[in-house]
Amino acid sequence: MAHPVEQHLADLRARKTDLLHRDFLLTWEHSREQIEAVLSLAAVLKGLHQAGVSYRAFETGLAISIFRDNSTRTRFSFASAANALGLGLCDLDEGKSQIAHGETVRETANMISFLAEVIGIRDDMFLGEGNRYMREVGAALTEGAGAGVLHRRPSIINLQCDVDHPTQSLADLAWLKEHFGSLDQLRGRKLAMTWAYSPSYGKPLSVPQGVIGLMTRFGMEVTLAHPEGYGLIPEVLEIAKKNATESGGKFRVATSMEEAFRGADVVYPKSWAPYQVMQRRTQLLQKGDKPGLSALEKECLANSARFVDWQCDRAKMSLTRDGKALYLHCLPADISGVSCQRGEVSAEVFEQYRIPTYRQAGYKPFVISAIMYLARVKDPVARVAALVGRL
Amino acid sequence: MAHPVEQHLADLRARKTDLLHRDFLLTWEHSREQIEAVLSLAAVLKGLHQAGVSYRAFETGLAISIFRDNSTRTRFSFASAANALGLGLCDLDEGKSQIAHGETVRETANMISFLAEVIGIRDDMFLGEGNRYMREVGAALTEGAGAGVLHRRPSIINLQCDVDHPTQSLADLAWLKEHFGSLDQLRGRKLAMTWAYSPSYGKPLSVPQGVIGLMTRFGMEVTLAHPEGYGLIPEVLEIAKKNATESGGKFRVATSMEEAFRGADVVYPKSWAPYQVMQRRTQLLQKGDKPGLSALEKECLANSARFVDWQCDRAKMSLTRDGKALYLHCLPADISGVSCQRGEVSAEVFEQYRIPTYRQAGYKPFVISAIMYLARVKDPVARVAALVGRL
Amino acid sequence: MAHPVEQHLADLRARKTDLLHRDFLLTWEHSREQIEAVLSLAAVLKGLHQAGVSYRAFETGLAISIFRDNSTRTRFSFASAANALGLGLCDLDEGKSQIAHGETVRETANMISFLAEVIGIRDDMFLGEGNRYMREVGAALTEGAGAGVLHRRPSIINLQCDVDHPTQSLADLAWLKEHFGSLDQLRGRKLAMTWAYSPSYGKPLSVPQGVIGLMTRFGMEVTLAHPEGYGLIPEVLEIAKKNATESGGKFRVATSMEEAFRGADVVYPKSWAPYQVMQRRTQLLQKGDKPGLSALEKECLANSARFVDWQCDRAKMSLTRDGKALYLHCLPADISGVSCQRGEVSAEVFEQYRIPTYRQAGYKPFVISAIMYLARVKDPVARVAALVGRL
Repeated sequence: MAHPVEQHLADLRARKTDLLHRDFLLTWEHSREQIEAVLSLAAVLKGLHQAGVSYRAFETGLAISIFRDNSTRTRFSFASAANALGLGLCDLDEGKSQIAHGETVRETANMISFLAEVIGIRDDMFLGEGNRYMREVGAALTEGAGAGVLHRRPSIINLQCDVDHPTQSLADLAWLKEHFGSLDQLRGRKLAMTWAYSPSYGKPLSVPQGVIGLMTRFGMEVTLAHPEGYGLIPEVLEIAKKNATESGGKFRVATSMEEAFRGADVVYPKSWAPYQVMQRRTQLLQKGDKPGLSALEKECLANSARFVDWQCDRAKMSLTRDGKALYLHCLPADISGVSCQRGEVSAEVFEQYRIPTYRQAGYKPFVISAIMYLARVKDPVARVAALVGRL
Repeated sequence: MAHPVEQHLADLRARKTDLLHRDFLLTWEHSREQIEAVLSLAAVLKGLHQAGVSYRAFETGLAISIFRDNSTRTRFSFASAANALGLGLCDLDEGKSQIAHGETVRETANMISFLAEVIGIRDDMFLGEGNRYMREVGAALTEGAGAGVLHRRPSIINLQCDVDHPTQSLADLAWLKEHFGSLDQLRGRKLAMTWAYSPSYGKPLSVPQGVIGLMTRFGMEVTLAHPEGYGLIPEVLEIAKKNATESGGKFRVATSMEEAFRGADVVYPKSWAPYQVMQRRTQLLQKGDKPGLSALEKECLANSARFVDWQCDRAKMSLTRDGKALYLHCLPADISGVSCQRGEVSAEVFEQYRIPTYRQAGYKPFVISAIMYLARVKDPVARVAALVGRL
Repeated sequence: MAHPVEQHLADLRARKTDLLHRDFLLTWEHSREQIEAVLSLAAVLKGLHQAGVSYRAFETGLAISIFRDNSTRTRFSFASAANALGLGLCDLDEGKSQIAHGETVRETANMISFLAEVIGIRDDMFLGEGNRYMREVGAALTEGAGAGVLHRRPSIINLQCDVDHPTQSLADLAWLKEHFGSLDQLRGRKLAMTWAYSPSYGKPLSVPQGVIGLMTRFGMEVTLAHPEGYGLIPEVLEIAKKNATESGGKFRVATSMEEAFRGADVVYPKSWAPYQVMQRRTQLLQKGDKPGLSALEKECLANSARFVDWQCDRAKMSLTRDGKALYLHCLPADISGVSCQRGEVSAEVFEQYRIPTYRQAGYKPFVISAIMYLARVKDPVARVAALVGRL
């Protein structure tokens, strides 16, 4: 019998890839075919790793990471992916200068890139800043490569910005594809992307934005639910609507977790800060206004406290299709009675789905590997096919 | 004439190895045969490196380090060993959370391990905590691998805990084996593991515990000496006694450095904190009681000051066999008149044995390499034999 | 037609190399032939990288970096070079101990070096200290290798000390060689190494010292210009004079930027602290005298403020040969109206030469690669020739 990886390879072969030497900043900037290629390649690479076959593609070369916000999981996913391709990891620590723009970015981008293949950037704190920063780095690299400063322009991979978290949403999608058997099986399935209560404050909007911007492209019926005032960036809502129309899916906004959960096949309860609060916070952070930030935090926590009922518990799960929806989370979750007094999910529901959330997370290193592979390796399909031949 | 490495290879071949996919947390959890295999392989790998033959065994893969206490030497030993096997190093910086347990450990252990081969952990500050933490990580990895979250369960290597410092004691033993010619030559030799005065406070107990727990297995006559109140963990004393009985060696506790040094072939004078103090310190640290910690430090230093005579100097060395015992230290030593006013060893004695202590330390990267190799490489003996064939 | 790299390879073949297992601390400790070999090899390696041919030379091994001062660019250059040769990077973070000497250096140097091939050190803050520290490390390594502690003595590469910044000046020279077509074309060209105003304080002297110590060896007519009191280390001035005499070049000191720029082919306007101030600063730093340091800074900034006219602007550039001298800077520059109100160079001039300064910087990873290659690879010329054959 054929190795299960063969089917993923066949799916990959059926798609034309066009990522070579490009950046990966927002999923909706790439064709559906390209997204499918990333997923198929990720599954192939995961299968190779499982079988103990290395997919190293470089003898040398650097993968640079720029983490403008803290991260453990994404850091390790990026490090794992870079290492698996044979790239050496080099972290740029910008120190305290949270918002470096203009001359500094233009120059630094080139100075660090002489032998780089990829640059992974995480910058999700400031609305209107993170994605812009990535494009500023990209423009500097394009200039440098055009002027012969750089032999090759590295590809930028968005490891979470203010707008999207593409390696997360792609890992989520890869897990849904595995769980339901295929991307076609997602058609018509209901997904509830809902806000959930958390005692912390200021969580970025990019996870829910990434999810509604991606899952709507695969015919899913996506419901976004949140209390009043917790809306997302309007442009991303427009993208989700347009995607749903084009893919034959649906996208709507609901005002309670219960409404979103009803009949859902998949639920994704997760806290985030209100858009308007993030805007005010960005301004205060830029001014370095500490008393203002602390007042805003107090106000925001008081406001959130009105919505402690937005918790994913057994009662709400019972509203889902046959009471058996798949629970998703990007981790770490705020688990009531475990990591906090009252949080996004009850201990009981989380424990039931704990291992599945780990498997969901397990796709991230392979999704990043796949993006790197398509962006930097010539003839990626032929090359990976040769590796599958070894199985 | 045969290359000297051939003998070590022959010794390795004569032993059955059973470390594959296992952890290495305490030397006394592994058979004497296994310890001997580690030492023989370490010597082979050291010989290969000396001859300029790489023993790289992986194309890719991560070696993760978790240093919950500061370290330079062990950090570099682990980094060197990982690099020599072809693994990329990735450090997990847990930040300020000194004691993370439960959910966090369970989740993080899996999140960082998707492409990991080994995890090296140092956690030696809290009595009753370090070794427990390692086992908690291990249990989480076992669960993750069993559930298909991890393709392969990484092996944990103890880089120093509250109970043992196995890579140190194995490096010490490797050096004794070289110095005296063979492990058999250690039979009946007297080793003095003695407390020594230091102006610092709170040094872990794991070095002396590791030494008495390991050397007693090779027929050595081990004397542990310390002032009253500076005892070690009782369970480890029991293990040392049992080991000595089984191996035909001896283990006793003495109350003066002089008594331990008399007729000794090997001396290991080294400071550590009193067991009871470490227990109180652990409680204070867990409560974050800074005034309490500072009071305890003052009390402890005042107490230690009563024992400034516990210094290894020429007069005490003259009590050893022919006045020529081998001096061991895990480094850095507190050297009187050099790194402190009054410390563990006189400048004169230290200078005489300085280079030998460097050679002792030089075994550590190869001991760690050997453990990694046995724990992660299939058919390690055949594979390394092929490399020796290249000499 | 022959690949352009062929000529650089031919130049390399024509030179005898003698760097194997040696350190690279000061350019003037190495023969002109050796300097030329480094430049030719750097150009070959750059060409290989451009063509996508790896010049990896090691399966495993560590490149250790010790940055006693902050650095982004040199850090990435060293990391890139190490990675390109196949070495794993390992950074030694000495923490707060700015001046570790004696026992600590002797011991640490050996402890980190068991599997190391190269050690890159940056230590440029203290006059009389940085270069001395590197030699102390070197002496410890020589002792360790002689005593059999180390299988191979790693080579030390000076990544900037108080005296020289050889990887910078070699990158500068490589760029001049490319720009003017050959080293022979530098003969008789006028280079203005001049002080420039900066609102910051305490910049090291090693860049101008490195430039005057190296460019005078290639027949250039070097003018050093600075306000009174901003002189360099006297010994380096002597070296520059001697070099100029031997190479048929010239070396003189001028007292205005204008004087130095007149008829210049190359200008290098760059701020540095006065020698005497650096001496006083070193003493204050060693004493940890914060009020003294702050008073000195105030005094020094007030003094520098008298020389705000020492800015490279269009008017001064018009004094150079045909108004078209090549502008050099080691980056980052203090650009008036961009990175500061008033600085080393006007925005207009900098923008005109921005891309050329990036290309100048682009030689550094390859210069460091070349030094590592010559210092650590046996038969480097034959080995690299085989790679060129693949083009």
